[in-house]
Amino acid sequence: MFRTKIPPKNNSMPRYLTVVIPYLREDQRGPLLEAARRNGFEVSFFLSNAEALPHLAEAEVILGSGTELIRHAPKLRWFCSMTAGVEHYLRADVVPADVLFTNSAGAFGVSIAEHVMMVTLELLRNQEGYRRIMQERQWVRNLPFRSIKGSRILILGTGDIGIEAARRFRGFEPALIRGINRSGRCEEDCFDRIGTREDLEDWLPQTDILVMSLPGTPYTRHYLDAGLIGLLPPQAIVINVGRGMTIDQEALVQALQEGRIAGAALDVFEQEPVPQDSPLWEMPGLIMTPHISGNMALPYTVKRCVELFVEDLDRYCQGQPLLRTVDRKAGY
Amino acid sequence: MFRTKIPPKNNSMPRYLTVVIPYLREDQRGPLLEAARRNGFEVSFFLSNAEALPHLAEAEVILGSGTELIRHAPKLRWFCSMTAGVEHYLRADVVPADVLFTNSAGAFGVSIAEHVMMVTLELLRNQEGYRRIMQERQWVRNLPFRSIKGSRILILGTGDIGIEAARRFRGFEPALIRGINRSGRCEEDCFDRIGTREDLEDWLPQTDILVMSLPGTPYTRHYLDAGLIGLLPPQAIVINVGRGMTIDQEALVQALQEGRIAGAALDVFEQEPVPQDSPLWEMPGLIMTPHISGNMALPYTVKRCVELFVEDLDRYCQGQPLLRTVDRKAGY
Repeated sequence: MFRTKIPPKNNSMPRYLTVVIPYLREDQRGPLLEAARRNGFEVSFFLSNAEALPHLAEAEVILGSGTELIRHAPKLRWFCSMTAGVEHYLRADVVPADVLFTNSAGAFGVSIAEHVMMVTLELLRNQEGYRRIMQERQWVRNLPFRSIKGSRILILGTGDIGIEAARRFRGFEPALIRGINRSGRCEEDCFDRIGTREDLEDWLPQTDILVMSLPGTPYTRHYLDAGLIGLLPPQAIVINVGRGMTIDQEALVQALQEGRIAGAALDVFEQEPVPQDSPLWEMPGLIMTPHISGNMALPYTVKRCVELFVEDLDRYCQGQPLLRTVDRKAGY
Repeated sequence: MFRTKIPPKNNSMPRYLTVVIPYLREDQRGPLLEAARRNGFEVSFFLSNAEALPHLAEAEVILGSGTELIRHAPKLRWFCSMTAGVEHYLRADVVPADVLFTNSAGAFGVSIAEHVMMVTLELLRNQEGYRRIMQERQWVRNLPFRSIKGSRILILGTGDIGIEAARRFRGFEPALIRGINRSGRCEEDCFDRIGTREDLEDWLPQTDILVMSLPGTPYTRHYLDAGLIGLLPPQAIVINVGRGMTIDQEALVQALQEGRIAGAALDVFEQEPVPQDSPLWEMPGLIMTPHISGNMALPYTVKRCVELFVEDLDRYCQGQPLLRTVDRKAGY
């Protein structure tokens, strides 16, 4: 994609910020209005992309989600995606090189970590079994179950999501929390150990709870492949809240079917929506949710997205580097 | 009940410990065998009360559960119940005054706290709604949901269960964790404030998540009555893991039906098993489990019960006061 260089702005000219958030409540507009005012921006709010598209001609900055917003904004200088994952923008090569590109990584950890704790406990405590017993109005009380206490946890991806999950796991007194990332380092103290891809062969056989919060990049495609799945012990449960493409889904299903792992909870899938004829729908030991763990229906997540954007808007107007700039090569 | 005084034991005579635990695994017998040996006891293991009853004639100490064990043990000097709640023993007045009576309070907090966290998240995150959506193979993603972060938590009962729940809630960054007990004091630092029954009128209207972990005593019957339920705000959820009789169940159901509270999760009920024709079975917004939150099917709970008992067995044999003696007047 090509685009002519936009000339530096004259301070006296009006500058336009467009915000497209379906879930933004009236009372959450305040911080955006204030930030726009103090930085000399006019701000327009829209509830959907369809509604916003005809009004993007003058937009210098957009906070929203969806490649079409960028395509309809010829004067765009900065696009902030209200998502953490940005692989669809990069795949479509839709963000011009001279347009600043940030994401909202850091806004979703709280919500997604709560999802992780919920499904971990549901799987370990056989909650699906008890739900069925209650549905049949029976009173059976001896289903086997397990505890997070004493369990060995491995978290792939030590960003916002992995860190918030590790913090919550800690209160449940697990035996060990390990994390995997590309550098093998993490500044947070919520992990007992941090390793890299190299450590997986050693660590997976010692894992009771595997949490995956990896971004979708060319590097992470089928990151958890059949070989690595085969290293998990039979009591292991697998939770994916990152991207569906980071797991070889067919291999995971097979491991579940053959009882080589104890359970799984998937919020993300290789194909979304999951096709009607997928074997996933009927898989025992699998908890499915429709990619909602970091959903904007949670007011806190919207509030946090706005806070992070406002922080960067101030920096943008002061000529400072933005804090959540997407690394287009790394893919996140 | 009357019983002749048992004469002091001669150290050279054999002493008998009987252990009745359905869920005791082979590898968990070690600590009991060791403790028995060092204290000069012979120990018999049984998997059920029916199996144990014919062999209790010489039992001096019993670790188990059920009033019939006591009735069949004429030489009993100490009964340790493998439960936290002991109201059925006290109601039946089955433990002679000169028999030491302890419970296993302290063994169940970990398991029950995990249950509390699970059902709290299920209620706040509309997991039942998403489960139905997945069951119908739909892909709906906009159900409203909430977070523990920023929520105001009130825990009635600050024993083992209340404390373990508070510790786990803390990691989720709630706005406030308050506890209620009889003294208004708690040595643990996991509560922001501790109050007594007197504070409920003020605190209930400011409660988003109400957790009840009260024992069943004459004092706690319908502790949460229609009047107090009426003070809860409409977004409140109520979780009971203590005893069913501590809530006016009919009043709670009515509040749910009328939308005066947002949801409830009951593991304990006024009548157990819940009668087939109870309105509870079909109640929207209610998560039911069959009194399993502290279930012995969890190996950790059995292990902890054994540890606590062994601690007291050493004290018993050294003539020290037992740590978990039941206060027969208070009822727990």
